[in-house]
Formats: sequence, C-alpha cells, structure tokens
Amino acid sequence: MEIESKELVLKAIQEKKPNLLKEIFETIPTIDIAEAMNEINDVTQLLYVFRVVSSEYTGDLFAELSNEQQEKIITAFSDKDLIKLLENSFADDVVDTLEEMPANVVSRVLKVAPTDLRKDINQLLNYQENSAGSVMTTEFLEMRDNVTVKDALKQIRSKGRDAETIYTIFVKDIKRNMVGTVDLDELIFAQDEQTLGDIMNRDFVTCNVYDDQEDVANKFKRYDLHAMGVLNNDNKLVGIITIDDVVDVMQQEAEEDIAALSHVAPLEDSYLQTSVWSMAKKCIPWIIVLLVLGTFTTMVLDRIEKAHVFDIVPVLIAFVPTLMDTGGNSGGQTIAMMIRGLSTNEFKPKDYWKIIRKEAVSALIIATIVGLFSFVWFTVEQYTGIVQIEIEGQVANIWNGHCWTWGFARHALLVSSAVSLTLLIGSFLAKLVAVSLPLGVAALNKDPAVVAQPLLTTIIDVVSLLVYLAIATLAFSWL
Amino acid sequence: MEIESKELVLKAIQEKKPNLLKEIFETIPTIDIAEAMNEINDVTQLLYVFRVVSSEYTGDLFAELSNEQQEKIITAFSDKDLIKLLENSFADDVVDTLEEMPANVVSRVLKVAPTDLRKDINQLLNYQENSAGSVMTTEFLEMRDNVTVKDALKQIRSKGRDAETIYTIFVKDIKRNMVGTVDLDELIFAQDEQTLGDIMNRDFVTCNVYDDQEDVANKFKRYDLHAMGVLNNDNKLVGIITIDDVVDVMQQEAEEDIAALSHVAPLEDSYLQTSVWSMAKKCIPWIIVLLVLGTFTTMVLDRIEKAHVFDIVPVLIAFVPTLMDTGGNSGGQTIAMMIRGLSTNEFKPKDYWKIIRKEAVSALIIATIVGLFSFVWFTVEQYTGIVQIEIEGQVANIWNGHCWTWGFARHALLVSSAVSLTLLIGSFLAKLVAVSLPLGVAALNKDPAVVAQPLLTTIIDVVSLLVYLAIATLAFSWL
Repeated sequence: MEIESKELVLKAIQEKKPNLLKEIFETIPTIDIAEAMNEINDVTQLLYVFRVVSSEYTGDLFAELSNEQQEKIITAFSDKDLIKLLENSFADDVVDTLEEMPANVVSRVLKVAPTDLRKDINQLLNYQENSAGSVMTTEFLEMRDNVTVKDALKQIRSKGRDAETIYTIFVKDIKRNMVGTVDLDELIFAQDEQTLGDIMNRDFVTCNVYDDQEDVANKFKRYDLHAMGVLNNDNKLVGIITIDDVVDVMQQEAEEDIAALSHVAPLEDSYLQTSVWSMAKKCIPWIIVLLVLGTFTTMVLDRIEKAHVFDIVPVLIAFVPTLMDTGGNSGGQTIAMMIRGLSTNEFKPKDYWKIIRKEAVSALIIATIVGLFSFVWFTVEQYTGIVQIEIEGQVANIWNGHCWTWGFARHALLVSSAVSLTLLIGSFLAKLVAVSLPLGVAALNKDPAVVAQPLLTTIIDVVSLLVYLAIATLAFSWL
Repeated sequence: MEIESKELVLKAIQEKKPNLLKEIFETIPTIDIAEAMNEINDVTQLLYVFRVVSSEYTGDLFAELSNEQQEKIITAFSDKDLIKLLENSFADDVVDTLEEMPANVVSRVLKVAPTDLRKDINQLLNYQENSAGSVMTTEFLEMRDNVTVKDALKQIRSKGRDAETIYTIFVKDIKRNMVGTVDLDELIFAQDEQTLGDIMNRDFVTCNVYDDQEDVANKFKRYDLHAMGVLNNDNKLVGIITIDDVVDVMQQEAEEDIAALSHVAPLEDSYLQTSVWSMAKKCIPWIIVLLVLGTFTTMVLDRIEKAHVFDIVPVLIAFVPTLMDTGGNSGGQTIAMMIRGLSTNEFKPKDYWKIIRKEAVSALIIATIVGLFSFVWFTVEQYTGIVQIEIEGQVANIWNGHCWTWGFARHALLVSSAVSLTLLIGSFLAKLVAVSLPLGVAALNKDPAVVAQPLLTTIIDVVSLLVYLAIATLAFSWL
C-alpha cells in the first residue's frame, strides 16, 4: 500500500470526515484500510469507523484487523453494535477471530449471536484445527435437482447474499445426497425451463469433514476447483470450502515445510509482526535438540582422534568439514524433495519402493560424478598448497617444487583417493538415508518433517566419519 | 484417482466403447482421464478419444495431457482436427503447450490457428517467462460503464462462452481506460436498469504486463481476488489473470524457495516424472559449487591444524562438527525466513534496517541461551566420558573417578568455556550474516536464493573456525 493512502485513511479517521471515509472505502481495498487502522491506539476512533461506514464493508474490515484491534473493538462494542457486526460477517471469519480471543470474549459473542449464526459457529469450533471442517463455511447454496434454471436464479437473488459463494450451487437429490454441482455460468447459459439435474456436473469432487486441509488443498490444485463440497460420515453435504480459503492453506503448508527444513518452528504471524522473544522461542528448541543429537558426532570424532588415525596424516582432519557438508548437502536435497512430495500428496505408500530404487540409482550417478570431480579437486588443493602436505618436515607445493617427488605424489594421491572415496560413499549413503528415513516415518503415520529431518545431519555426520575412519586406516596402514 | 477408474478409462478406449467413454467424461474429472491416457502408447487410440468425445471436453483434456502425448497428437492430427481442437482451447493453455514443443510443431499450430487465436498466441508468446503477460489470458469480458445490467447479462450470454471467466466483468470508460470491475453476483443482485458504472467496484487492483508473476500472486493473496486486470504501459487493459493460474504460480514459487534452501535446482516436472538423469543434473552442479566453496574451510582448518593448536588439547577437534553444524543451523533458520519474506514480498527495502536490528537482538538472546546450555552440556559430556579428557595419560571420567581433581576440573571447564563461547559468538555471527547477506543481495536486485544462500555455509564455517582458533589459543596459552 502506498504511504499516502495510509496517511489519507488515518487523517480521515482522526479528523472525523465521514464523507471522505466513505469515499475511501469505495476506492481503496479493505485490507489496506485495515492495515492502516491497526496503527490506531484510540479505541473510540476504531468504533467511529464502524459507526460511519456502510454495513457492506464492516464484516470484511473486522476480519482483516489484527487480533489486538478485534479484541479492543468487541470489548468496547455494545451488544447491539456487536449483533450488527455479526450479521454482516461470515461464520468462518467469526470462528477464525474467536480462536484467537480469550474465553470471556468468545462467550459474549456466542451469547449475542443470532441463533443461526451461533449454531454455525459452534459447529465449526468443534472441528479439529487443520481439518476440512475447520476451514469450511456452512453458508452455501443448496438446491434440489428438480429445480428449474429460472427458479434457481430466483433463489440465488433472494438467498444468495448470505452465501459465501454463489458461483457454485450444490445439487442434492430427494434423499438429500449430493448428486452434482452447477456453476453460475452454466446457469446463465442454460434455458429457463431446464432443471438443475439436466445441466449439473456429475464429475464433481468432494472431501470429508475430517480430511486434512492439506489434502483438500491438493485436490483444489489438481482439479482446478473454485469450491468443493464437504461431506460428513453419512455422505451428507455439511459445508463448502472456497478457493480463497485454500490459497491461505497452501501458503501455510508451504511455510511449514520451509520451516521444518530450516529447523525452526513455523511463525504464527508474519515475520515483521513477530516479537524478538517469540522469534527466540521458535529458534532455540531446535538448535538445542540438534546440538544434543550432535553429541554422537562429537563422540565418534573424539574416538577417531584418540585412535591416532590423524597423527599419521594430519592433513586428513582438514577435510572433515568438507565431507560432512557435502554429505549434508547431498542428503538435504533428497529429504527436501521427500518432505515436499509427501506433503503435497504426490507420493502414495505404494510408490515408496519405486522412489527408493529411483533415488538409489540417481544417488549412485551423483556420488560417482561428484566423487570423480572431488578426486581431481583435492589433488589440485594439495599441489597448489591450499592444503599443505608435509614431507619430512618440508611443506610441499607446486610453487616450491618439493611436490615433484614420488613420495609426495603417492602421498597426495592416497589422500585424494581416501577423501574422495569417502565423499562418494558418504554422499551415496546420505541420499539413501534421506530417502528412506522420511518415507519410513511417513509409513508409520508420523510427520517426517518433525521426526526424520532433525536426525538426518547427525546420521550423515556419524556415517561419514566412520566411513572416513575405515578408508583412511586401510589406505595408510602401509605408510 | 482410484485404480479401478483408471482401468475403466483404459478399457473403454482400448475396446472402443463410445457410450461408456462419454459416460466416463461426464462422471470422472478430466485430469484423472488424462492421467490414464498418458499411459497409452498407441496414437490411434488417443485420436479415437478426441474423435468420440464431446467438444466441450477436448480443450481441457488436451491441456492436461503430458507433453509427449500432446506432441504425438498434434503430429497425427489432420489440419481440420487441429483447428477444431484449437477452437475449443484457451489461448493461454495453447501457449503453455507450445512452449514445450519443437519449432515445427509450433509453426504448424500457428499456421492453422484461426486469426484471432493466432494473434492472442503470438502476443502471449512474446512475454518473458514468469511475467504477468506470460500467465494472463486475453479472452475476457470487457464492457463500457454505461451498459445496463440487463444488456450486460445479455452480452454475457452471447459472448461469455469464449471468455476464461465470466465471474468478473472489466469495466472501461469512453477513453478505454479501466475504471472498475463488476462481479457476476453483483450483476445478479442488481436492478435491470442500473448501469455497470453505478454498481462497479472502484477499489480494484491491477498489475502491469511486465510485473513478476510472484508479485501478482502476492496481490491475489493479499486482496482475496478471483481475477485481476493486466495493464500495458499505456494503462490499457490487455489481459486478465485468474485465480487458478495463480494457485499454480504460488505452488511453483514455494517449490523454488524450498529447492534453493536445500541446494537443488527446482524440478520442472513432478518428482515421479523426473528421470534419474535429470535428477542428477539438478543435484550435481550445486554439490560441486558448494564443494569448491568449501575449499576455504579446508584451508583454514589445515592452517589451524598446522599451527598445532589442537596438539595441546586434542579434544578440541571433536567439537569442530558441532560448532559448524550449530552455526549452520542457526544461520539456516534466519536465511530461510529472509528468503521467504523477500519472495512473498513481505519485506520492502525500507524495512531492511529494521529487520537487521530485530534479528541482531533476537540473535543475541538465542546465542546467549544456547551458549549457556551448551556450557553445561559440554561439561556433562566430559564428566561422563562421552568426550574423553586425558590427564597425564589417564582417561578421566565420572566412572573411574579420575575426574575429581583440580587439574581435570580446570581443564574441563576451560574446554567447555572455549567451545561454548565459540558457539555463542559463532551462532550470533551466523545469524548476522544470514540476515544481512540476503537483504544486501536483494538490495542489489539479485536473487538472494541463488546468490546469498550458497555462500552462507562457507562463511559460517570459516568464521566459526577463526573464532574457535582465537578463543582456544587465548584460553590455553597458559596451560
């Protein structure tokens, strides 16, 4: 939003200019106005806006305000004002608000809400978070299949204003089972005397009220839907979900995946609205969990060090971070694809074995190419003196000529071989762990982002170190 | 899709049952049918479907098929068949298909396409990938502001079938400037004699034809839009974007962020459809880039090792992976939030300074708490013998009692202090780098996911090592 329009909004409110305010509501999107109003501290000014502005905007405006402002307003409103506001709001928006409010506010709203709305609110509040039931709205257009197009349009004109969408009409048969959908454009193009049963789509898609919202979002995307019917366990239509709710769900699910992959709890508000303290609370637990898991790595490296493996060829230590980082990167690529594929429902349990085989083949290709490249690169590092090989107390590199001896060449090539072979095996194993761990966890119906992802680094670090130990011991046993 | 319905589709095609096939198209979503048809190798079977099925389905069906099948069909189609197919397709779907086809197919399609469609296709093909122009459709309903509601509905009935959406009508004034939008529901609820100018929304949102599709998607989300007008540089309306295109854009942008954060090039197809070779091509370049960048870490660690810092207290080596992993995790949390905030347009350049200060404060809190925890944890590690401290050739731990001496305590606490202080400073610096690097890159108008993200690990590794070196040298200089 432009800074000028924000100042315009605040000015119109502070200087109490009702006509300017009405004009503003007609020309500036409501969310931009709400954002400006979030900066107002004086509750009487907030109430002023709701008193002055046309009732067609108040429901939306209230839904877009911050929780803090919503609470202020509900508390300050008279019962009459509150009833008026609720009459202009959709049940699902009210529920979204109530879920963030203290109990006394919730009970006051439920007390004053009109009976119909209260019933709807109570029903929605009962569904588990992230279920289709918690996202759906109960205000929709439902008609019998024997209704004519003409009558349907008449019904839309009379009842449509209370519905969340009039673009899709849900058609039921005499047993109240859902049998089809009619889109408004089909109604517009149809003949007056046709019935909804004649023109309805029979290839409609529905979901169950207990389905996960992520599955619902995936169906919307797959089938390019604008609205979807939600059925209860008796297959009766109890609500609908519209695309604008799904856009929010999709965004939320992507944020959750990104948060999990970067080891942080998902933020509930936007970054800019999150305080430093809640930021710290989102970050610290994961860092500490990973730190404690890292103990295994520390222990293994300590034992290897105590076994004096590095004493013979001290330069091997310098490659430890590279080995671990490469294993981590290699596994990280795969686990990200797995977690994403699982959360967008691309993978079904029956695909798991296929995926593991596929990933094993590509892991082999990737590890071989990266291994060969790294052999060359590690050799270059030693010849240029990026990594310094000491032979009989002399540092050897290409610039001082000490490296052109059989002893140096043998030593340098042995080091390159040991490190690049570890890297090859390590990144291959890293991908295998990264594909099987999340799929295994998903097969057990646990969340792979939470269970599999944190273990990955530690497993890869430990495996890389053990492989390194074995190969280095073998390679240098005859030095 | 259920396996049975897939088999039903294939059976109806292979056994050439036209009536069953028609029934299938009415009761099964088109994308599910397309998915089944992707498994058919015999092109005559594919052509059979297009010949039998009602023309209302062919455009959609073709758009949902895989590129391979599309190419087969275009090549096998007669010009007459092709024209019929094109007449039933939307320009933006045709362009999506053509972008994946070889040049000879493109020129054949353009040759046979009806003039209007060809003009639209050419226009869309000219816009840069990922621009609003490349996503928009040129088939929409546009009316003058003095048209009455009654006439508007009449126009919709006659011209609406060719439009991508009839739910939003774009209103222009006498100078052909866009002045408002009217949603179909508003039209339905309005009086016949009102004009569009009377009932239109004047608080509409538009974008420019050259805007990035990501910015467009963010506007859709912010303003809960179903369709948005696209203006050219003269502010004339040249196309519209609808929500179903935006859902795909949002998904694509989230995938890109996730891919960048996990060091892999974004997949173009779904995971299951990507071959192992193209998978390898997506993974290898990044692993190699990061491997080469990691050279700095190798070099620094080699120099530290050569300076014999670890010889005095060899156990310090065991903590190197923990220090690097913790720094990486700490920085990774922050860079993920930065890249996400930048790509969803939550951050504006004017916020950068505010974000850096905020992140600095939370980094200090996080680093302090993690540092204190790690001091305790590292001490526990040494007392329990997870990490073995050797004093005068004796391994000391809580079980053999050797640790209850002043010498051991001093040594162990010094190690814990050095490591946890490094961890404190390292993770603080990691967060500072992770917040300033992407914002700096974004301020220079480069993509932070590509430029900033790969550098992060190396910078953090090197910084952690140097801090460790300084602290360890200082702490143990008087041992």
